[in-house]
Amino acid sequence: MPTFSAERLREIATAIFRAAGANPEPTAIVVDHLVSANLAGHDSHGVLRIPAYVRAIQEGRIQPNNEPRILRETNVAALVDGNWTFGQVSVQFGTDLAIDRARTHGVAVVGVVRCNHIGRLGTYTAHAAAQGVVMMVTTGALGRSVAPYGGRQGAFGTNPVSFGFPAGTHPDIMIDFATSAIAGGKVMVARAKHEPVPPGCLLDRDGNPTTDPNAYFNGGFLLPFGGHKGSALALLSVLLSQALLGASEYADSAGLTGTFILALDAGLFRDRSAVEAETDRIVARIHAVPPAEGFDAVLVPGEPEVRTAERRQRDGIPVPDDTWAEIVAAARTVGLTLAAP
Amino acid sequence: MPTFSAERLREIATAIFRAAGANPEPTAIVVDHLVSANLAGHDSHGVLRIPAYVRAIQEGRIQPNNEPRILRETNVAALVDGNWTFGQVSVQFGTDLAIDRARTHGVAVVGVVRCNHIGRLGTYTAHAAAQGVVMMVTTGALGRSVAPYGGRQGAFGTNPVSFGFPAGTHPDIMIDFATSAIAGGKVMVARAKHEPVPPGCLLDRDGNPTTDPNAYFNGGFLLPFGGHKGSALALLSVLLSQALLGASEYADSAGLTGTFILALDAGLFRDRSAVEAETDRIVARIHAVPPAEGFDAVLVPGEPEVRTAERRQRDGIPVPDDTWAEIVAAARTVGLTLAAP
Repeated sequence: MPTFSAERLREIATAIFRAAGANPEPTAIVVDHLVSANLAGHDSHGVLRIPAYVRAIQEGRIQPNNEPRILRETNVAALVDGNWTFGQVSVQFGTDLAIDRARTHGVAVVGVVRCNHIGRLGTYTAHAAAQGVVMMVTTGALGRSVAPYGGRQGAFGTNPVSFGFPAGTHPDIMIDFATSAIAGGKVMVARAKHEPVPPGCLLDRDGNPTTDPNAYFNGGFLLPFGGHKGSALALLSVLLSQALLGASEYADSAGLTGTFILALDAGLFRDRSAVEAETDRIVARIHAVPPAEGFDAVLVPGEPEVRTAERRQRDGIPVPDDTWAEIVAAARTVGLTLAAP
Repeated sequence: MPTFSAERLREIATAIFRAAGANPEPTAIVVDHLVSANLAGHDSHGVLRIPAYVRAIQEGRIQPNNEPRILRETNVAALVDGNWTFGQVSVQFGTDLAIDRARTHGVAVVGVVRCNHIGRLGTYTAHAAAQGVVMMVTTGALGRSVAPYGGRQGAFGTNPVSFGFPAGTHPDIMIDFATSAIAGGKVMVARAKHEPVPPGCLLDRDGNPTTDPNAYFNGGFLLPFGGHKGSALALLSVLLSQALLGASEYADSAGLTGTFILALDAGLFRDRSAVEAETDRIVARIHAVPPAEGFDAVLVPGEPEVRTAERRQRDGIPVPDDTWAEIVAAARTVGLTLAAP
């Protein structure tokens, strides 16, 4: 498996999107987003996506040089037309708007509609936390992947939810999870390894519990995490990113998904530095808990990503052979021949 | 076990709190809150609490005739001093303020500090949803009940989170759950019945997984629901209701817990009726999922409570003998002799 420096992956991804017709500015945003997902260890949202994005540009689903614009707004709320550029460009625009309004007015809510795949949610909430802003982001839809609690068929997408909260000297808190018990990508990995998935993650096509990863690809369903509680959050994600925003009213193509963004200035109720110092004390309290069997330390959300990023920044980012071959093939479709890694 | 009409329970609770020295207005709020928890089927937050509240009044921890007041505010944010009246009175004040501001400005965030036990969170979010307002409420603290993911000792309280979202003709969505895998009350019930609790809920005092309910009362800990995801929400609850609000700065007694309230007008981005109609369509889609083995129907969050309330409104509210005996004893301490049920 070839290993690349983050810088080299950025160069490669930039060359491909530029050759596919994307201008420098949207290219820089999407490339930063993809490589930062790889650095954080979330390869499913990293450069693996390049071939699909190139295809979407070629088919006109991603119109990379369109610019997001505000459809309606008040001081503390805005609805953004993502305008079918890269989803990362649309939601980064929405995130920056929310941060800006929250800085001025204390609170802001932004919805983004007409939006392609937005990548890793934690990138947006970590970006906000780094600027002293508490943020929630969710994107969700009705679908067929995830069964609601008590059901034997799917009704939800994997409907992820993310929160960022600023710390002081400790890494910021960055929570980011799918509301399914297991990610589709992990079921794929289990199938490739001929291993079962843990109990409580899958239903077969008839709605019976199973640990056989093949059952999922044969018409089966994912279960929500945490029973009725995770199922409730999957529903909340649909309500916030669809019903509240009216995302489907604006969908002039297949993309029905809206993105909901809430931003709160950490200095809303007291000095931001006092908030960050208390976050540090809370983190220290969690760190002081002795680890359970099988754990080296008790970490807070966001720490595993920071550690992985430090390591990959130093040692490079491994890219599986298949993924690299697909990136090379995608590059060829836009007239680029990539050097062997 | 005696059964009471909701009206009769209200009369009894009102007489007790009035005799304990509470004025009519705070009494009406706390009594409505307690009896509505019983109606919803959440008896742990119902009239069971009367004896503890009476004791707290007698000991000066609840000062029922104090009034909540605003400590600082902007158009879209306010910090409320609960002023040590009934927690339900403090948070109802905060909730109404948030609803009012959200109606005017679209969004509002309210924190409540110096606050006693606030009862069932779902009461506040359901109240907001009934008025066309989306609401999130959380109250949480560091503690010793619930172990963080990967830890062998407790660091969190049970840190509940609640969301309300308005529907049209269907019942509103009301999500309300503790971030522990099981409620302390349910461990108590299992112990009384000499039954094990489900796996994945408890650690013994040494941090080893167990299904023995006695282990919890012998120095053990609850686990968070849904592994690292539930643990992350337990932490988020602490960050929002403590670090953001600065609740501990205002705590001149044992109560360190703050309450965080977020309100969004459902008409923020489009007509509220369109939002409610889409919620109805989403609920109908969930209802159309065939139920799994062991389920009669797929319900959305809030429906079980509505069904229980209809049944108990009609058939009465059962109150266990022990609970009734404790209420009778509490009444006696304020000079009231309750008639046999």
